Amino acid sequence: MALDEARIGLAHGNGGRYMRELIQEVFARHLGGGVLDTNLDACPLPALPEGEVVFTTDGFTVQPLEFPGGDIGSLAVHGTTNDLAVAGAKPLYLSLNVFIEEGLEVEVLDRIVSSLARAAREAGVQVAAGDTKVVRRGEGGGLYLATTGIGVRRHGLRLGMELIQPGDQLLVSGSVGDHGICVMLAREQFGLSGELLSDAASVFPFTSALLDYPGLRFMRDPTRGGLATVAHEIARASGLSVRLDETRIPVRDTVRSVCEMLGYDPFYLACEGRVVAVLAPEAAQRALAAWQALPGGDDAAIIGQVDAEGRPVVIETELGGRRMLEELEDDPLPRIC
Amino acid sequence: MALDEARIGLAHGNGGRYMRELIQEVFARHLGGGVLDTNLDACPLPALPEGEVVFTTDGFTVQPLEFPGGDIGSLAVHGTTNDLAVAGAKPLYLSLNVFIEEGLEVEVLDRIVSSLARAAREAGVQVAAGDTKVVRRGEGGGLYLATTGIGVRRHGLRLGMELIQPGDQLLVSGSVGDHGICVMLAREQFGLSGELLSDAASVFPFTSALLDYPGLRFMRDPTRGGLATVAHEIARASGLSVRLDETRIPVRDTVRSVCEMLGYDPFYLACEGRVVAVLAPEAAQRALAAWQALPGGDDAAIIGQVDAEGRPVVIETELGGRRMLEELEDDPLPRIC
Repeated sequence: MALDEARIGLAHGNGGRYMRELIQEVFARHLGGGVLDTNLDACPLPALPEGEVVFTTDGFTVQPLEFPGGDIGSLAVHGTTNDLAVAGAKPLYLSLNVFIEEGLEVEVLDRIVSSLARAAREAGVQVAAGDTKVVRRGEGGGLYLATTGIGVRRHGLRLGMELIQPGDQLLVSGSVGDHGICVMLAREQFGLSGELLSDAASVFPFTSALLDYPGLRFMRDPTRGGLATVAHEIARASGLSVRLDETRIPVRDTVRSVCEMLGYDPFYLACEGRVVAVLAPEAAQRALAAWQALPGGDDAAIIGQVDAEGRPVVIETELGGRRMLEELEDDPLPRIC
Repeated sequence: MALDEARIGLAHGNGGRYMRELIQEVFARHLGGGVLDTNLDACPLPALPEGEVVFTTDGFTVQPLEFPGGDIGSLAVHGTTNDLAVAGAKPLYLSLNVFIEEGLEVEVLDRIVSSLARAAREAGVQVAAGDTKVVRRGEGGGLYLATTGIGVRRHGLRLGMELIQPGDQLLVSGSVGDHGICVMLAREQFGLSGELLSDAASVFPFTSALLDYPGLRFMRDPTRGGLATVAHEIARASGLSVRLDETRIPVRDTVRSVCEMLGYDPFYLACEGRVVAVLAPEAAQRALAAWQALPGGDDAAIIGQVDAEGRPVVIETELGGRRMLEELEDDPLPRIC
């Protein structure tokens, strides 16, 4: 780091020399070497592979900026590439918008951009365009990011909630609620965060494993609003009922204990590296085996099924009863992504 | 507007019912009808036209959010589509990130999204993906936007500062500094803003008019840092000297008066609807005639040329002298885009 200042000032966003230095010494240093050219107004992309182009975007305001298992930088890669992955695409390129609040330590920014670059390499995507703005102290939250992603999927791939039928099975690729609880613990400094890491990661290995299954109907990553919200989206779009089996939904012990202590329901908490998939019954067992064979897939499980009749989302409890999962109205844990 | 609340609250960003309402009643209402589907994780794009795909992004933090001749919404369309246009591309699709500060009036947001939608229609682009975050009061500036654009340009089109040669001519498509002064006046409420409108607009008609000229070397829109900054970028990248002719650079009377009163130099002020183009001498007159024939092109002018030797950027003054234009170090007017 050869930047003269320890903290970002307004001049780092004004289009002049300070800004050029910041771009060169932080952004280009970590993100350069590929297609990114910080001297261009717009970046030409190498010819895209054959297939349908898909496009998505996400904004990131997580607090704190760094937490066990990740930070706002790696999250900005995973959040957007995962939206491409669950649409059945291979993520290829990202753009990156940075809104820095005056006073942010340059060292923190550097660490976050470095982590973002590492996550992009791991996810197989390149940052191909970027922009930085600096806002005055008291007009930002330290750092906000936005990423927009381009991916390509096989022509003719059909996935969608409207394809879901009664009898279809719901799978989840791993334990739920890790990210939400991990960020909450990092924020509140309960001194409990010890072993729990955010699940934030690329889900592309999980989504791509299922793309050739004829019985694959739909995939979604349970982020804001968690598993319960995905279940409600499925119920609303399909007009069917989603029945979950509480005993089969993987929840880590730490997450379960914190939820019991503080009164949270883990099924509403955000994951940032999990997939929910809906498959025809004949394909579900094979999909489960494929997921369990992947690194990080040990906890994958079949967690429920779709019924023709019933309340939108019901859950069969450990004691053999049933309760409804209501639609989320008020987020118990804001600013987790 | 059927939203119950007059102001945006944190619940409008939490992934639940309030957020769904906001998305439906503000964003989908103005931006729907095309490829945008707010129920998808990622939007499939119709087959792109033959050519090279180009990609760019920009963030917007202008204050005030609305000003004569535009607002942060229309600016978010023009800023990004103009970066595609000066790269020689036809803008096709945008993504939109919205960071709303708790307390923003829903009516203001609705007006801005409506203006953004209108600017997109005029620029011939569709918003194909979006995301909304709400941050706490005191952690935002009312509204920040980011847009990422996809465009396509002819295969084999070569444009770049490295192509510029001694003798090449510089053109500008209209008066400079209107946007910077207009926003400054709107902010400071000098009561002077009367007739001056921001120049914010799509430059695609101007850029596309020149794409078939063999002598076209390079185009850029003089935004942050203005005309002087573009001249410095050309000088730095080409190793040549840019000589501007002060008497030929179009500056509106209001802009000139305000600059004289307040000590600004109009050549450093942002434009959001102008292009600087560099052309071989034999192509320059024809390009000028083409621009002057376009709506809004009356003030287009040849404003200087590129010399083999000399200081990076010099300007010949009205009195027949010469002065250097220094590189911008500290922006006289921050937050104008």
